[in-house]
Amino acid sequence: MQDEKVCADAVSMMADAGIRLTDRERGEIELAGFGLDNFEREGLALVVYVNGDRYCAKELVLFAGQTCPEHRHPPVELEDGRTDPGKQETFRCRAGSVYLYVEGAGDAGGIKAKVPSGSEAYYTVFHEVVLTPGDQYTIPPNTLHWFQAGPEGAVVSEFSSTSRDELDVFTDPRIQRVEAQEG
Amino acid sequence: MQDEKVCADAVSMMADAGIRLTDRERGEIELAGFGLDNFEREGLALVVYVNGDRYCAKELVLFAGQTCPEHRHPPVELEDGRTDPGKQETFRCRAGSVYLYVEGAGDAGGIKAKVPSGSEAYYTVFHEVVLTPGDQYTIPPNTLHWFQAGPEGAVVSEFSSTSRDELDVFTDPRIQRVEAQEG
Repeated sequence: MQDEKVCADAVSMMADAGIRLTDRERGEIELAGFGLDNFEREGLALVVYVNGDRYCAKELVLFAGQTCPEHRHPPVELEDGRTDPGKQETFRCRAGSVYLYVEGAGDAGGIKAKVPSGSEAYYTVFHEVVLTPGDQYTIPPNTLHWFQAGPEGAVVSEFSSTSRDELDVFTDPRIQRVEAQEG
Repeated sequence: MQDEKVCADAVSMMADAGIRLTDRERGEIELAGFGLDNFEREGLALVVYVNGDRYCAKELVLFAGQTCPEHRHPPVELEDGRTDPGKQETFRCRAGSVYLYVEGAGDAGGIKAKVPSGSEAYYTVFHEVVLTPGDQYTIPPNTLHWFQAGPEGAVVSEFSSTSRDELDVFTDPRIQRVEAQEG
């Protein structure tokens, strides 16, 4: 039951941002909790528009203060012998605000986000990029990053190369990327 | 002067669809007239969010009844010796409606769009896909397609593989893909 409410709230945030979904998409919203059993603190809702062997596009929804834990998208050996350097992704903020952290200058003491309490050891990069509607940022392959919604939550469009979520490498060793949960 | 008004109208349509642009993006809106000197009839406005060697994302704006002429995205020989099969693209309607035509069953007599008068010879595919907000359709590489906005115009997000507009092959031999025009 809680999942239905969470999905409805995510749909409402997207609607407020002008984003319309089909009935099928509403039924396939993924609530990613990363196996941490604290979705409100570390988690996000997402809709996959398209994901193939060439490109991917998703809509991400984070509620106020919600955090997507630190991770990177590692290189992948492809079936044809080539190496994919890892997923590259462009985040474009559609509504609300998002505090994005990537490798580079910055420290835990001077950032706008609040690192989830008790998980400090698993947040190690603090170069801050603040995105508000219309802003975007491209994260290179195999680069550690994490992000947290501001006080109004955030709706973020993600444009990327092929997405292989199951291969993501998280800094927090407790994390296992879970399968899609039907809303 | 007219260009400024057209760009302002495109920005307004995007804003009504909840899409915010940066000042820089507003200044870089491309008005594609395809060298036909009849932008209101055959043309579209577009904003390129990101276009690299892995993926591309754009926002397309068509005014009421405006048409993007028939074309395909051919295979491309890459510098490393591989062959790109041609741009694959996913159109997702954000606002208004769009009549999309691709190769397949269908004929000129039974479609919702009006083929631009005098250009009938250059519109040859009529398999109709009608997209309204939340609907999307993926066009395979090297496949002929064209599209026209419905009576309210259309705002369409395009997710795709790398975009190389200058290589597009148009059915109308008069068309030359023009360089970006600053708004």
